[in-house]
Amino acid sequence: MRTIEYKPIGVIYTPFKSLKDAPNQPNYNRNIEGRIEIFPEYIKRLKGLDRCSHLILICHLHLCKGYDLVIKSHADNKPHGIFTCRAPCRPNSIGISVVRLKKIENSVIYILDVDVVDETPLLDIKPYVPEIDGHKDVSVGWIKEKVKKLHT
Amino acid sequence: MRTIEYKPIGVIYTPFKSLKDAPNQPNYNRNIEGRIEIFPEYIKRLKGLDRCSHLILICHLHLCKGYDLVIKSHADNKPHGIFTCRAPCRPNSIGISVVRLKKIENSVIYILDVDVVDETPLLDIKPYVPEIDGHKDVSVGWIKEKVKKLHT
Repeated sequence: MRTIEYKPIGVIYTPFKSLKDAPNQPNYNRNIEGRIEIFPEYIKRLKGLDRCSHLILICHLHLCKGYDLVIKSHADNKPHGIFTCRAPCRPNSIGISVVRLKKIENSVIYILDVDVVDETPLLDIKPYVPEIDGHKDVSVGWIKEKVKKLHT
Repeated sequence: MRTIEYKPIGVIYTPFKSLKDAPNQPNYNRNIEGRIEIFPEYIKRLKGLDRCSHLILICHLHLCKGYDLVIKSHADNKPHGIFTCRAPCRPNSIGISVVRLKKIENSVIYILDVDVVDETPLLDIKPYVPEIDGHKDVSVGWIKEKVKKLHT
């Protein structure tokens, strides 16, 4: 199957300089600030975005070079297939982060709860809609143990 | 900024033959069945996925050719910037769908609540984790009116 090509729509700037610095998930790091600089050709497409409190950012996790076949987690010390993990380095290193919108000034979107590294290329922004993105009665497999540890 | 290249990890097969046929969002179309055929090199990475009830599929919405600068919605008959919409055709036509896992047999993942068109290239699978992916106190801007209409 053919290769798929995307062109970034902007860049995310954050306080995290390496994958090791970046937090595990945005929800666990509330209030960390970042900013998105949107490229000029997309600025007009932001119209109305300031009425959304939460944004889904789809990013290219550019610092990933290769990935492990299986991930061994500190949570249970067992190997897990990459598709059962939220690890950043994957066959296609695409990240999804839900962040809170602070304000928009021209081409700059100020955000909270950021979890990606500095200078991450941004591929898409979608409004977070609880009726679409929220799900109940969920089983998360081995991650249950990991989530518990992250919360303690 | 340079172009980013991804290689599909599999293909999603669904009953929808065109963008017009496909439902607006997966949550509004419960129980529609589809299947994912994972390419051989990624089968081992599925280990443990059968313990997850909900999967986030990141897909390339391959039938999109170009996109509108602003979207005029039937919900309020006003123009909206593309990044405030969940429309499939965007600067980078990346879709995120949360589906329910039915079963996995070798390289085939059977899913429910599918909303993408037949033969959609799949870029990534992540487990849906409510502690990461669920958010409260959300404002969704103009989409509020659209969500109301979809539910009626």
